[in-house]
Amino acid sequence: MKKGISASKGYAIGTVFIKEENRVNVEKRYVRDIDREERRFQRALDLSIKQLQRIKVKSEREIGKDEAEVFESHIMLLKDEEFVGTVRVKIETGHINAEAALYEVIESYMKIFNSMEDEYMKERGIDVKDVGNRVFSNLTGWNFSLNRIKNDKVVIVAHDLTPSDTVQLDKSKVSAVVTDVGGRTSHSAIMARTLEIPAVVGTMDMTDSVKNGDLVIVDGFDGSVIINPDEDVVKKYRIKMKNYNREVEKLKFFIDVETVTKSGKKIKVLANIGKPQDVEQVLKNGGDGIGLFRTEFLYMNRGNMPSEEEQFQAYKYVVEKMKNKPVVIRTLDIGGDKKLSYLLMPEEMNPFLGYRAIRLCLDREDIFKPQLRAILRASAFGNLKMMFPMISSVKEFLQAKNILRQCMAELENEGIDFNRDLETGIMVEIPAAALEAEELSKYVDFFSIGTNDLIQYTLAADRTNEKVSYLYDPMNPAVLKLIKNTIKSAHEKGKTCAMCGEMAGDENSIPVLVRYGLDEFSMSASSILKAKQVIMKC
Amino acid sequence: MKKGISASKGYAIGTVFIKEENRVNVEKRYVRDIDREERRFQRALDLSIKQLQRIKVKSEREIGKDEAEVFESHIMLLKDEEFVGTVRVKIETGHINAEAALYEVIESYMKIFNSMEDEYMKERGIDVKDVGNRVFSNLTGWNFSLNRIKNDKVVIVAHDLTPSDTVQLDKSKVSAVVTDVGGRTSHSAIMARTLEIPAVVGTMDMTDSVKNGDLVIVDGFDGSVIINPDEDVVKKYRIKMKNYNREVEKLKFFIDVETVTKSGKKIKVLANIGKPQDVEQVLKNGGDGIGLFRTEFLYMNRGNMPSEEEQFQAYKYVVEKMKNKPVVIRTLDIGGDKKLSYLLMPEEMNPFLGYRAIRLCLDREDIFKPQLRAILRASAFGNLKMMFPMISSVKEFLQAKNILRQCMAELENEGIDFNRDLETGIMVEIPAAALEAEELSKYVDFFSIGTNDLIQYTLAADRTNEKVSYLYDPMNPAVLKLIKNTIKSAHEKGKTCAMCGEMAGDENSIPVLVRYGLDEFSMSASSILKAKQVIMKC
Repeated sequence: MKKGISASKGYAIGTVFIKEENRVNVEKRYVRDIDREERRFQRALDLSIKQLQRIKVKSEREIGKDEAEVFESHIMLLKDEEFVGTVRVKIETGHINAEAALYEVIESYMKIFNSMEDEYMKERGIDVKDVGNRVFSNLTGWNFSLNRIKNDKVVIVAHDLTPSDTVQLDKSKVSAVVTDVGGRTSHSAIMARTLEIPAVVGTMDMTDSVKNGDLVIVDGFDGSVIINPDEDVVKKYRIKMKNYNREVEKLKFFIDVETVTKSGKKIKVLANIGKPQDVEQVLKNGGDGIGLFRTEFLYMNRGNMPSEEEQFQAYKYVVEKMKNKPVVIRTLDIGGDKKLSYLLMPEEMNPFLGYRAIRLCLDREDIFKPQLRAILRASAFGNLKMMFPMISSVKEFLQAKNILRQCMAELENEGIDFNRDLETGIMVEIPAAALEAEELSKYVDFFSIGTNDLIQYTLAADRTNEKVSYLYDPMNPAVLKLIKNTIKSAHEKGKTCAMCGEMAGDENSIPVLVRYGLDEFSMSASSILKAKQVIMKC
Repeated sequence: MKKGISASKGYAIGTVFIKEENRVNVEKRYVRDIDREERRFQRALDLSIKQLQRIKVKSEREIGKDEAEVFESHIMLLKDEEFVGTVRVKIETGHINAEAALYEVIESYMKIFNSMEDEYMKERGIDVKDVGNRVFSNLTGWNFSLNRIKNDKVVIVAHDLTPSDTVQLDKSKVSAVVTDVGGRTSHSAIMARTLEIPAVVGTMDMTDSVKNGDLVIVDGFDGSVIINPDEDVVKKYRIKMKNYNREVEKLKFFIDVETVTKSGKKIKVLANIGKPQDVEQVLKNGGDGIGLFRTEFLYMNRGNMPSEEEQFQAYKYVVEKMKNKPVVIRTLDIGGDKKLSYLLMPEEMNPFLGYRAIRLCLDREDIFKPQLRAILRASAFGNLKMMFPMISSVKEFLQAKNILRQCMAELENEGIDFNRDLETGIMVEIPAAALEAEELSKYVDFFSIGTNDLIQYTLAADRTNEKVSYLYDPMNPAVLKLIKNTIKSAHEKGKTCAMCGEMAGDENSIPVLVRYGLDEFSMSASSILKAKQVIMKC
């Protein structure tokens, strides 16, 4: 048996199909004729864009519009002057071959993306690698496409899956995915959850432990993979599978049910989203609203700041789609490890403890104000609220509110409509904020506890650092004390307390949070139905 | 007027003497005859070592044995096979000139040292630069020595001062030091404090703002420098100087006085030290003991782990020197940003939230046990206590204690003497520890609050990052809550609570800490007398 990380729930029993790794082996060569080399590069680019357009169409048809988006971003990267231009400059100044130049540029992009904690940004790193591989293959004539699967219902075992690989996954042929690398937020994991295919990632050496045709059981719950099991074990798992499928069906019951605890308290179960298109899945899963709308997507993968108008359109889209259900927009949480190519940022030794989120926004009103204006304008179109990330004191909150008031006055003067009573809250994700919740609750309209950061600061343990991740524990008594104090302080002032960290969707934590009196739980859309069920038993 | 960072207290009025910057301008050249180049390098090395030996003797005579140590470390670096060998390899493999090879090696060393937060390590970076400049000058025949000062009582204005510069500072000729760069923990600052010469560092562009012969007033308290002041201002400062000098004399009264608050509570005022030789200054300033003995010095600037015996000798030296006064040894706080050349460590995105201190020690008993055995053995020779850094939970403390017990059993078997009742405490420097102080106080013998880390985690603000250092505030109400809770919890279980962060020596913080009931204050030796005075007024 192999142990990995549970990435997508469900059970599967099937035969192994190994995706052979295509290792890129780039030799750096001196090139005399630069023009010729640049033409070679351009041809490979053009071909890659054409292929991607085809894959995008296939993907839209077979998987869905949202999931096909990734290929649009691949195409955009290949059309991005900064990316392509840097490769060209390297060819010209270094007199080197296109492969080597491309390799160097991809490496530097990957290094940046890989150092980021954000799920969305990590995906981008894999995108760059994937799109790079495509151009390589078109430069060299290698073929990177996943071999055709002939058997029914195989379990794909791979070192890792790229977006190009996953688009070829066919639910009628693939019963599960197992990879050597990756975590719960890797691209393979996210795609497997979207396709609802059980997945175990981060097994370290699965590709070395099995051969094609081996029978395996994939347990997407505890992250284990059983290789060539006994007949008894297979039987046991067949029963588990049946029970699970029955449960999934049963959960659909909760889609339109109001969530009420045993003691009669009404609870809102909302979704965290990272881009406007995610709204579909929220509605499908019966979310009571959006508890965290991250706005970083608007700022990333581009060469300049998004305009106020562009932001307004994105926010308005979401608010209108959600009808009268609440949508909580979080202002920009960029900086630290999340960098923008068009914004000069300091190199920091400890980006998690650095210049980011509200710290950057208070320092850069030229960035902050257009977002606030866009949010205010969108507030006229539905049930919109907003919150500031990384607030550590009353002073910071009042500073932010002051800038918000300036924006309100501007819009007023310009005769543009907005909600004058827009609810404004804060993320409680710094220990100081949780400790000072009593004071802060006098000023804010609501709290939303961001457990991912709160836990890592309280325990001084970077959750993305596997050497200390054993310390990262949501049920640590010190963390629970801070959560309890935050909820209590909110209620004493008649304010609402939400939670939008991963803990809110964790079945083991939910009963404790209900006991503490948490009012709103916000989580990834796919966890909503299960969470509703758990809460109703509390 | 210029504003900088107050680095060494006191006032001075004097004429400017600018230390011209010697910029190293290294040209990389192709070298055919490698052997000849290596001989050139060796000659410059030998000459540099000879010069350093002379400077060391002069420095011992004129400044003191401890301060001369830095030149011994310069000599050691020039004899270090790793350092010198790397330069040779670069000459050989790259066919480049010795200057370029040396420059590259120094750059890479500096980069490592400069990224570190520790005062001691930052000094090491300047040492490397200083020693590098010396070898450069001996390679090229340039002369880097500070020009002779002819006037009496000048104010040295420099971009920065190296240890070689500072050894030439003569208190009868230099009344103050002002530099463009550096912070409170830069070498210039430390040396100025040792020599008791007023100093302002980090003025950014002081060397561009004055010329030789300008009259300046240096205010080492508020970090300001007044250029060509009016006669009235000079008069005002002459009075200030007189009052200050009187106060310094008066403070000597406190050397042998027991520190008692107005309400009759006896308080211990102790010192933080970084190496055994610091003991002298502790005794000279009437310290009641050593509240924090950092042990990293034993592990750094060398090619292998220190042996148990070597550690034992260092600890025994300090304990014996301090007679019966308490000495609290902190176990190794390496890892994260403090790296050892002979210990493979992971690259971390956020080293302050990473694999360091007790986390590394619990993981590496091969490193931890020799230190614990050395501490235990030294405990037979005086009033020794020990504490673990970065403890976040009871579990971690018990794990550490368990390893300590194993060491005790070993020594018992070997018939080696040690203190069976050795007091074992923890640093409270992670928010979780302060929040869980009530639980932890049941198990530990004492607490020592490490405010430097505690503040930065509680506020999620890296104190070494100037973009967010405005958030780093010891008097933040959340921080004070944690400190109060830690002291209260210790007292409820009849345990002692100390503090060894910079806050303990801060005049503004001391009254609050006395009010909270803090039992022991540990600080840099030079702050002890003032702190005693402040406490006795509380």
